[in-house]
Amino acid sequence: CSATWAQNTVTISGTADMYVGSIQYAGTERQNKLGSGGMTTSWIGFSGTEDLGGGLKAGFALGSFMRLDSGALGRFNGDTSYARDANVSLSGSFGSLKLGRSSSPNFVPSLLVNPFGASFAFSPLIQHMDMTNVPGYTKTAQADTGWSNQVVYSTPKIFGGLTVNLHYQFSNQPSPNDDKNNAAISATYASGPLLLSGFYEQAELNNPTVTMRALKAKDWMLGGAYDLKFLKAFASYGAAEDMAQQDDEAATVQAGVSIPLGSGKVLASYAQTKYEVSSASDLTRKTLSLGYDYALSKRTDVYSIVMHDRFTGTNSGTSYAIGIRHHF
Amino acid sequence: CSATWAQNTVTISGTADMYVGSIQYAGTERQNKLGSGGMTTSWIGFSGTEDLGGGLKAGFALGSFMRLDSGALGRFNGDTSYARDANVSLSGSFGSLKLGRSSSPNFVPSLLVNPFGASFAFSPLIQHMDMTNVPGYTKTAQADTGWSNQVVYSTPKIFGGLTVNLHYQFSNQPSPNDDKNNAAISATYASGPLLLSGFYEQAELNNPTVTMRALKAKDWMLGGAYDLKFLKAFASYGAAEDMAQQDDEAATVQAGVSIPLGSGKVLASYAQTKYEVSSASDLTRKTLSLGYDYALSKRTDVYSIVMHDRFTGTNSGTSYAIGIRHHF
Amino acid sequence: CSATWAQNTVTISGTADMYVGSIQYAGTERQNKLGSGGMTTSWIGFSGTEDLGGGLKAGFALGSFMRLDSGALGRFNGDTSYARDANVSLSGSFGSLKLGRSSSPNFVPSLLVNPFGASFAFSPLIQHMDMTNVPGYTKTAQADTGWSNQVVYSTPKIFGGLTVNLHYQFSNQPSPNDDKNNAAISATYASGPLLLSGFYEQAELNNPTVTMRALKAKDWMLGGAYDLKFLKAFASYGAAEDMAQQDDEAATVQAGVSIPLGSGKVLASYAQTKYEVSSASDLTRKTLSLGYDYALSKRTDVYSIVMHDRFTGTNSGTSYAIGIRHHF
Repeated sequence: CSATWAQNTVTISGTADMYVGSIQYAGTERQNKLGSGGMTTSWIGFSGTEDLGGGLKAGFALGSFMRLDSGALGRFNGDTSYARDANVSLSGSFGSLKLGRSSSPNFVPSLLVNPFGASFAFSPLIQHMDMTNVPGYTKTAQADTGWSNQVVYSTPKIFGGLTVNLHYQFSNQPSPNDDKNNAAISATYASGPLLLSGFYEQAELNNPTVTMRALKAKDWMLGGAYDLKFLKAFASYGAAEDMAQQDDEAATVQAGVSIPLGSGKVLASYAQTKYEVSSASDLTRKTLSLGYDYALSKRTDVYSIVMHDRFTGTNSGTSYAIGIRHHF
Repeated sequence: CSATWAQNTVTISGTADMYVGSIQYAGTERQNKLGSGGMTTSWIGFSGTEDLGGGLKAGFALGSFMRLDSGALGRFNGDTSYARDANVSLSGSFGSLKLGRSSSPNFVPSLLVNPFGASFAFSPLIQHMDMTNVPGYTKTAQADTGWSNQVVYSTPKIFGGLTVNLHYQFSNQPSPNDDKNNAAISATYASGPLLLSGFYEQAELNNPTVTMRALKAKDWMLGGAYDLKFLKAFASYGAAEDMAQQDDEAATVQAGVSIPLGSGKVLASYAQTKYEVSSASDLTRKTLSLGYDYALSKRTDVYSIVMHDRFTGTNSGTSYAIGIRHHF
Repeated sequence: CSATWAQNTVTISGTADMYVGSIQYAGTERQNKLGSGGMTTSWIGFSGTEDLGGGLKAGFALGSFMRLDSGALGRFNGDTSYARDANVSLSGSFGSLKLGRSSSPNFVPSLLVNPFGASFAFSPLIQHMDMTNVPGYTKTAQADTGWSNQVVYSTPKIFGGLTVNLHYQFSNQPSPNDDKNNAAISATYASGPLLLSGFYEQAELNNPTVTMRALKAKDWMLGGAYDLKFLKAFASYGAAEDMAQQDDEAATVQAGVSIPLGSGKVLASYAQTKYEVSSASDLTRKTLSLGYDYALSKRTDVYSIVMHDRFTGTNSGTSYAIGIRHHF
């Protein structure tokens, strides 16, 4: 509450992203809409760091998602208010320690290894990992892209470019659920044109509202990107089990490219997930997105995307969108 | 999320407005209260613009209403979090295009043509158009003063002072409601002492929570103001139909003055609405407000208002309020 | 809504406070958790003041609490969005007048007279006055630490260090509840090493959601602190009645010390409350907290606390916590 230090230290940032689209995921009806978050989920946040001396820093982050179409808070009704970030951290030569709600272990690796980044609407990989748009399809990363009650320890950069993160989520529930937890390891290596990233996570807790899962879901992914300047290539492979039923299994392969063209980039990505439930025949989801993302400035771009989405036993769907994304 | 550009571009603004009042609308009981938003609905917002070069600009706005009396978010329980603004825009020599939640077509014209501006508590015109305080009375602008899922195209200033706005609201619902929409045209002309403003809108959708209306409501208004320096005169006429029942009709006439006196202004406005339901006798609402608004600075004023409100078949009501409004 | 003045006048401030703890209040089960607000309830706020000339100032404050563990808004589900501050004020040589939601009369006195300040988790005094963690225990300050619909008049500093505050909360309800209110007087005197603070309040209304109380609860407290440099001593005594039942009574005595040690302070506080219900035997709650609060900077500290809590007829509980608090 001391005004004297406040003004210099709090940064306001966020993204306003809207598109006009005709959207049809596999197994769903076509819907024309003005949508929020075509390329990046719209958000606003407040953050800051304080230099404590001796290389030590304290920091905080508070970030809210919102739907710009309706002005509603959160990614969906019932989302937690600061679903993006709500944490305090301490960092130094030892690495960093972050306490509170922050990105889940799967999130950062997933957005680094596909050309559509963190597009929950149109990235095939993010669609397969995190979204439940397609009836009968089970998302592979069950425990949300943000974890509450989380302690994250991140190493400093080691071996010339590697960061390893250890994630632990408390249940914050009384006995007998007080030992239930989510736990994970994630890592990212970046050096010159090469990027590698991956995670392994176990989830006994749902997010953003923390409730107990019937099963301990497990999922992992490894992926990478290589920048040849005239083209950047992306690929990933991951698997998951015990998501919706005991011993169900999913495996996702994804490949994509980003090709500079004029002031923009041509984007293409394909993801395929085999979903195996013990007592039923296998199901396959196949999603292909093509787009062109044109930079009006470093902060503002316009994009157009076509996505084709198929899932065993239902109608396929094709989506079209044109949108604008503004970072602030 | 890039801190380097954020601090310079985000503007925080808003209004904190509170009054002590003894409030009685027609047909209601007297209530003594500490109320929020006597002259302007209290709000806080974050906005910014980016110069893209070549006369092109990108912008965003996020604005929340709140009730300062209780600290509750929104204008009422269940209001959308960013009910005032949640949009991204692009503007240039072609005019501007705004995507997301923003002011409805009726809002800006209505506040320009009456001396109490956007006072939802005490402006007779705003009371008749937008509020449901009086039992049995039907507001003429049914679809809220903010529209969700909205695309607004505004022309640049043409003919030396005219701006025309085209509004379209998507339903964002699947079939068979995907083509339901709100649509409107509004315009404002300002030149020297003269201001003219008006709108025509059709509404198949309710706001702020978007639901389907049983009927397509229609309403329009034309009004103006003329500034003679020693006195500013205001007048408006508007009509509406198919609001609560098929073929119901309302017509509202309003006139007012604002007279500079000392560091403040004397305000007076009278509105009369005839409400006609096919199978019943006509109903008439008559509301008169008198006030004095004293400027402590350009940003802060104190005001006192008396409002008398009558509606056919119920007790009349007289309200008294004294308040303070602070823009930040 | 005028951007030109906004950027210079709005201050963003707040506190991010998280701890890892093993928590057990009297009569409850042990719970391991990552908790929010060990020393200070986490919050973010926007505020500003405007110089009106002649010593007069206008100001506003909007402050939200949040739980950093889950990113949820408020101190608990159902808390009002701006539960900390939602008000506009005018101040000058006459003192200050604040309209809206702001601290209740009991809050500031209570945090000044105990060494753990406003720690709702670990201050024995705040636990006894404001929290309902212990089954069967009745908090003595029934009407919340923030009051909605409140007018607060504060005197300027008189007699070389005394400020007196008059608090009145409207019900904002129609007849027959329109005259129900909360009312109080509070005062603080600070001069050199001595601080004295106290309040008397009567509450017919609950907060933060304003509802009618069955009884008019009454509570008061007097306390003080004296700073001997090598040690700061704290003590308080208070009583309450008509909280949960007609003629129930509570009396709380508290004493504590804060002792500078290295870059930190050793903190100790003990509170004892006798709770007397007419038709039942007396109940006693005894709570002792010991802590060490180490300053990393003026804005950031780390703390470790042990709290022992007993209440007649139930199991005692001991809590352990280690945490970090960052002001911004």
